[in-house]
Amino acid sequence: MLRDLILKNRSYRRFYQEVDIKRDNLRELVDLARLSPSARNAQPLKYILSCEPKRNSLIFPHLAWAQYLTGWGGPCEGERPSGYIIILGDTKISGSFGCDHGIAAQSIMLGATEKGLGGCIIASIDRDGLRKALGIPERYEILLVLALGKPKETVVIETVGASGDTKYWRDSDGVHHVPKRQLDDIIVG
Amino acid sequence: MLRDLILKNRSYRRFYQEVDIKRDNLRELVDLARLSPSARNAQPLKYILSCEPKRNSLIFPHLAWAQYLTGWGGPCEGERPSGYIIILGDTKISGSFGCDHGIAAQSIMLGATEKGLGGCIIASIDRDGLRKALGIPERYEILLVLALGKPKETVVIETVGASGDTKYWRDSDGVHHVPKRQLDDIIVG
Repeated sequence: MLRDLILKNRSYRRFYQEVDIKRDNLRELVDLARLSPSARNAQPLKYILSCEPKRNSLIFPHLAWAQYLTGWGGPCEGERPSGYIIILGDTKISGSFGCDHGIAAQSIMLGATEKGLGGCIIASIDRDGLRKALGIPERYEILLVLALGKPKETVVIETVGASGDTKYWRDSDGVHHVPKRQLDDIIVG
Repeated sequence: MLRDLILKNRSYRRFYQEVDIKRDNLRELVDLARLSPSARNAQPLKYILSCEPKRNSLIFPHLAWAQYLTGWGGPCEGERPSGYIIILGDTKISGSFGCDHGIAAQSIMLGATEKGLGGCIIASIDRDGLRKALGIPERYEILLVLALGKPKETVVIETVGASGDTKYWRDSDGVHHVPKRQLDDIIVG
């Protein structure tokens, strides 16, 4: 059931870093994105894969992690992602990417969940730094970085309270709490 | 398997219009979007549902259908969508929606596929016209319209040829052909 997969697909930010991801697994995930809808079927998205410790370490410093968790600078060594899929927009194909990268990212994250992996869609990126670190040609716009690994944290969904506050938070046991709006609050007609 | 669902989730533009969609089914689909990732967990997306012929007929004229199929103005009466989910961005919650609507749309379309439905993510919308027709408050930005129904056409995936042309086309039997780029052409690193 898709609903079970969607429920299991939480945003994870701590991982068993020692658990490898194979490049072939990342390719299978990109293939899911390849087969997903694209505006005007233009398919302007391109992908960079990383699953080796050295390359992973070039990517990690350019990502911003969990801005609501003040005082937490992101996962420590040993709990970092085992792999990444960087989603690029090829400006030689299209000048705008609409929400193609959102569609692709959701296909990939659901596919990762099905493989027992998890991760986080990151849009808060030091793009210049990442471009330099990996030598990404100017032709490609850096849209998203998907961080992937075997999740090492518990994430629970809660209901947004009367305050309307949607900030996620982490309790003293390290459990990550995510308030979601109720269905009747998001259907407006 | 997610891959089977993704393969089955083609963009359909002709439907058995007489096959009803229940409002509860549309609510279940929005619930999948509700449980999907949102940047900073802000959850700025809101939804309008339509599954009654009269309301559907208010939405249909404001949608652009299959721009590559020149000479085809969209599905004729009898082959039009049985329902719609309109994805809005609530500007009181956020000034930008990133690719949240892409993520939400993919969850909804995969959920629809699982229910034996199909449809099309439409971004080419006469937004002013649709806003007037449904009385959508200015507070909401109209992001996408998801057209849904029981598919009445065959869609086949093909490989983009040497010309690089990604335009979809319809053959004399009405079969819809969609050229997709190959995996090795979209992985660039």
